[in-house]
Amino acid sequence: MTSTTAALSVPAAGKSFESVTIERRDLRANDVRIKIRFAGICHSDIHQARDEWGQAIFPMTPGHEIIGTVEEVGDDVTSHAVGDTVGVGCFVDSCLECEPCRDGEEQFCEKGVVQTYSSEGYDGEVTHGGYSSEVVVRDHFAVKVPDGVDLAATTPLLCAGITTYAPLKRYDVGEGTKVGVIGMGGLGHVAVKIAAALGAEVSVLSRTDAKKDDGLAFGATHYYATEDESVFDDLAGTFDLLVNTVGAAVPLDDFLGLLNRGGTMVNLGAPSENLEVGAFSLLTRRRAVAGSMVGGLPQTQEMLDFCAEHGITATIELIDASEVDQAYDRVVEGDARYRVVIDADTISAS
Amino acid sequence: MTSTTAALSVPAAGKSFESVTIERRDLRANDVRIKIRFAGICHSDIHQARDEWGQAIFPMTPGHEIIGTVEEVGDDVTSHAVGDTVGVGCFVDSCLECEPCRDGEEQFCEKGVVQTYSSEGYDGEVTHGGYSSEVVVRDHFAVKVPDGVDLAATTPLLCAGITTYAPLKRYDVGEGTKVGVIGMGGLGHVAVKIAAALGAEVSVLSRTDAKKDDGLAFGATHYYATEDESVFDDLAGTFDLLVNTVGAAVPLDDFLGLLNRGGTMVNLGAPSENLEVGAFSLLTRRRAVAGSMVGGLPQTQEMLDFCAEHGITATIELIDASEVDQAYDRVVEGDARYRVVIDADTISAS
Repeated sequence: MTSTTAALSVPAAGKSFESVTIERRDLRANDVRIKIRFAGICHSDIHQARDEWGQAIFPMTPGHEIIGTVEEVGDDVTSHAVGDTVGVGCFVDSCLECEPCRDGEEQFCEKGVVQTYSSEGYDGEVTHGGYSSEVVVRDHFAVKVPDGVDLAATTPLLCAGITTYAPLKRYDVGEGTKVGVIGMGGLGHVAVKIAAALGAEVSVLSRTDAKKDDGLAFGATHYYATEDESVFDDLAGTFDLLVNTVGAAVPLDDFLGLLNRGGTMVNLGAPSENLEVGAFSLLTRRRAVAGSMVGGLPQTQEMLDFCAEHGITATIELIDASEVDQAYDRVVEGDARYRVVIDADTISAS
Repeated sequence: MTSTTAALSVPAAGKSFESVTIERRDLRANDVRIKIRFAGICHSDIHQARDEWGQAIFPMTPGHEIIGTVEEVGDDVTSHAVGDTVGVGCFVDSCLECEPCRDGEEQFCEKGVVQTYSSEGYDGEVTHGGYSSEVVVRDHFAVKVPDGVDLAATTPLLCAGITTYAPLKRYDVGEGTKVGVIGMGGLGHVAVKIAAALGAEVSVLSRTDAKKDDGLAFGATHYYATEDESVFDDLAGTFDLLVNTVGAAVPLDDFLGLLNRGGTMVNLGAPSENLEVGAFSLLTRRRAVAGSMVGGLPQTQEMLDFCAEHGITATIELIDASEVDQAYDRVVEGDARYRVVIDADTISAS
């Protein structure tokens, strides 16, 4: 038993979007049906729609930054009510029984987390994401959107927010911490805002000076253009934490040289090339290279509440459904300022 | 003003050792003169004597694992007295004023730490190490050797002990921690003993089964031969910490797959090849690759006291000065069981 809803769908790797009708499952006892209001475009949507990670399932409706209104709840749902504004991020199911799930890190579920789209659910059905009018998800995987926030601009926080908030918290960023944010795109600009709100002294490390005014306006104290290689000498040993938001491979040894004793460079992007590191880059000042992958539901809720309290949203461009193909190209070219969000009201079954 | 002492010296990269006379500086007010009893052979001595890191200074007297007896103290020395048994490790001077020095991590001194040999001191003189009858060092850089320990077998702890103890403490190894030790040579076998004494569940990850009985005797609960590649599947996601003691490059992605959520692989060796890591190896389970480089004086003292309390020494082969060249070859071939120590009484100016 299923219902249907309008969606944007990519028929095969790298093809243009089509307006289609897709199926959503009928409500289970612990499901909520959400009328989607906004859906963000994450760079990983593009990787997937172009099958750059080699695991995409087509036809695909991407979208894992979703805000909408609950329009129906299953019989056992107590956490959400019809009319609530909720958010959905990168995954929509997990076992909720294994150690990572019990620890609130459902993204590392040992049974295997079910991603919001291009993933197979535990029922064997392929999931479809937020570029759509409606979505049905298990109640646990919808978080509460705080009252009074700008919904469109809050939408990207469901991925870009939690992806940057999680490592900033894990590495105890706060007053007195020197944080460098490498790259200032969709993830990076949110990392700057959150790190600044946590009290850190934030530096942007962007390739050029093009985004300098914005970076300082977002809360950075310093902004460095790394195309000027003297930066790597001048700032040697400066940072406690480097948050690398760049999706392509960066010269790791150069950036590791910027870390202070015991510092960590945490990578949030997933370039397809291997990372290359000299052994002495890590031994010297006992540095580390780490990865981080989104965050679990409890921390996603904490992040949304933190951002609401500190007036943090993404800086966005709101587009109609007809503009998604063009937006993909602009994101890849680094032209988006800084996250593109689709107005889901403009999605129809053509 | 200088005095002379007998030493083993390499005249140029890769040459055999010669018995020579070298100079030691006259005592400054804060110096101690030490009659050397034992000097350990660390794999990095070999890297340096063969100039494999490209920064060696010849002629070279290696040796940064030293135990001896204080035979003279400078006018201002209060921390050591004539007759004390003391140890000297990898470095013999630092500024003692910068933040790392104040934090007791003199190895990261911002002025530049002075290494025990093949290094230029702040006075411009080249340092010479422990393969010698006598050494003069600044008082701060000699630690107290606890009473009652086996001096020869304790000597390697001055490098192999602190190098493994520091990361085990930094990553909170103790009851309930699963530690994998990669490689069981000079560093690795000490790592096994210390990690077991800290209460961890220790696994040895060695290439072959050849050292299995020893590994279990040293305190490991499990021993795996990684030449059987099924180990990497069977143990996926097992360890909280991997201590990589192998000097050559290892397949990092394979080993990273063995780490549990949030786990770290800490590298103690310095292969000349770059490390290569797939981005997803770090993102998945938010793993990290880190480096660690010996440890400071306060922690070196703590380590020696810990090892004395727990009856931990290195497992050694004691040799005469005439056997050093042959010992180098055996260390490189992995034949040493498990650390070679030179009886300094056998060193003479020929």
